Amino acid sequence: MKNSLTHVRIVGAGLIGTSIALALRSKGISVTLCDSDSRAQSLARDLMGEQSPETSGLEDLCIVATPPEAISEVIEVELSRNSSLRVMDISSIKAKPVLDVSRTDLSLVNFAPTHPMAGREVSGPESARGDLFQGRPWILCLDGVDSQLVAMVNEVIAICGAIPLTRTVEEHDRAVALVSHLPQIVASLLARQLAAGQGSDLELAGAGLRDTTRIADSDADLWAQILAGNSSALRPLLISLQNDLSEAIEKLGDPAAMGELIAAGKRGRSLIPGKHGGKARNYPSLAIVIDDKPGQLAAIIKACAEAKVNIEDLAIEHTPGQQTGLITLAFSPEDSVIVAAHLENEGWKVHPSR
Amino acid sequence: MKNSLTHVRIVGAGLIGTSIALALRSKGISVTLCDSDSRAQSLARDLMGEQSPETSGLEDLCIVATPPEAISEVIEVELSRNSSLRVMDISSIKAKPVLDVSRTDLSLVNFAPTHPMAGREVSGPESARGDLFQGRPWILCLDGVDSQLVAMVNEVIAICGAIPLTRTVEEHDRAVALVSHLPQIVASLLARQLAAGQGSDLELAGAGLRDTTRIADSDADLWAQILAGNSSALRPLLISLQNDLSEAIEKLGDPAAMGELIAAGKRGRSLIPGKHGGKARNYPSLAIVIDDKPGQLAAIIKACAEAKVNIEDLAIEHTPGQQTGLITLAFSPEDSVIVAAHLENEGWKVHPSR
Repeated sequence: MKNSLTHVRIVGAGLIGTSIALALRSKGISVTLCDSDSRAQSLARDLMGEQSPETSGLEDLCIVATPPEAISEVIEVELSRNSSLRVMDISSIKAKPVLDVSRTDLSLVNFAPTHPMAGREVSGPESARGDLFQGRPWILCLDGVDSQLVAMVNEVIAICGAIPLTRTVEEHDRAVALVSHLPQIVASLLARQLAAGQGSDLELAGAGLRDTTRIADSDADLWAQILAGNSSALRPLLISLQNDLSEAIEKLGDPAAMGELIAAGKRGRSLIPGKHGGKARNYPSLAIVIDDKPGQLAAIIKACAEAKVNIEDLAIEHTPGQQTGLITLAFSPEDSVIVAAHLENEGWKVHPSR
Repeated sequence: MKNSLTHVRIVGAGLIGTSIALALRSKGISVTLCDSDSRAQSLARDLMGEQSPETSGLEDLCIVATPPEAISEVIEVELSRNSSLRVMDISSIKAKPVLDVSRTDLSLVNFAPTHPMAGREVSGPESARGDLFQGRPWILCLDGVDSQLVAMVNEVIAICGAIPLTRTVEEHDRAVALVSHLPQIVASLLARQLAAGQGSDLELAGAGLRDTTRIADSDADLWAQILAGNSSALRPLLISLQNDLSEAIEKLGDPAAMGELIAAGKRGRSLIPGKHGGKARNYPSLAIVIDDKPGQLAAIIKACAEAKVNIEDLAIEHTPGQQTGLITLAFSPEDSVIVAAHLENEGWKVHPSR
């Protein structure tokens, strides 16, 4: 692909802005990365390595990679130095930024609302990497956007290795409210309840609690803006959850009602698509007990490679108070049979599921 | 350790009962495994391999490994064939079974309430394995229990390789309500909301949603009894969650309130102890992009073994629509430096966190 972008200005040296900068720089595109936080800006610029001298000319594209609340303010400032400004944003909500930008002097044809779905529970330029977006969905809401700006946006996404997905602003906000914002608020509300733990209660915590609350570690300032900014899409989901929770409390002593609650959750979960965007697949898995020391995992993985099978998923289960580990490997049904036989031949204690 | 147990009767050929049977059999203890479901019983007996002839004599210990609702009924039946019956149970709730058993003809001194914390989202004898309990906590509520029965229970747990933890019945039920039953009901209620997804909304689902809802796949019939059976410990937690959820809905448009909600969740999550029962540790991690094909993971793990470092944790991130993968490896701070240098030397594109 021939680059048409030669100079990109990125405002916001956080995880997303810095990662985009790293990806663009690796393709020889000149990038100016700015942040109101001078530490973040300096760290991000160091990460980008040897810097071309500050370009005096104007950029082809300005990527606003700030938290959503700051977008319109940044645009006002940028417009004052570049009246032919073209902007793409990267924030996790779309209707609110579009509304905010419509109140600036920037025409909406020059504003491309986008959302790379590659967040992590970590943040800041220190967590950035140029391949953060490789193979991840990047949502585009480009209805009515100038075609030259659309081409630039597509070039950025192609360079980042992301998969473009088209949605309307409303479809985007509705979907992320369900698959991202609702789980975030639920995980945080659940984790908050742990403060009620007495004595050694939390010593009994297992993988279930850990997984269910993992995203509760996310950045509070950023998420405050996301949740508040998408409140209209999120509210009906939270009210539905509230109704279901009230009903659960009311019927808590009734096994039939509890059974229906769990069954309904199981049906809901089956709607999540599986790996690589395909339908959910249940891979057969092999459980293998190993010593929790160097070399064991390597030997197992090596044996799988010898058997020429593709590991679809891998999990390590930690064991409290003892230095043993449990490795669970998932395979396609065909590979599962092949590798189970191979590992057993090699003397591993293999436990196939079902 | 010298075995004092010679014959154990296990009623209930599910995941837990069959796993205990496999562990006991591997130490040469005679086990009779029964289930009212003849398919489960036959499958479990097949899994146990060559069977000693049905013992006509009475067992030293009867392990009731049924769902909680069935315990007292099983005990009545067992008492009618063995008046010197000694029982241990394995159910996930403790006050309700103790109350139920107190209404049978079995004296509570001959009933040992225990709970191995080794559940999985899979169930049935086909998921059983003799090492299911290796290194996992096994909670004992043995106040007032006959000392010979206590010795037998401890022998079972030692054979299973579990870590005994002592709690009162009340402490147990309070702790599991918080660390296990509350996350279960929350994950199920969250997953249930996915039915509201329209069109291609769920195509945007990522790791956050998947992790947060993983345990929603658990067995509905069993969990119905657990949740209903521990309703008195669970209710105040659900009411607290309900209050926090109502407050969140009320203040949804307020970024400051949302920020405090996320921050409170983060504080709650920091209370969960880390690997091996110790305090939570944040391991430095290395992110490495690989092709999603056989051999890549093996090569990385082999390189780690060569560097003589211990992988503390490993995660594979799937990428929709593209055949690349992201491997994240966690190490101790010292090992992290060693292995990052080694992998970089070997030409891997390594991205250390912070």
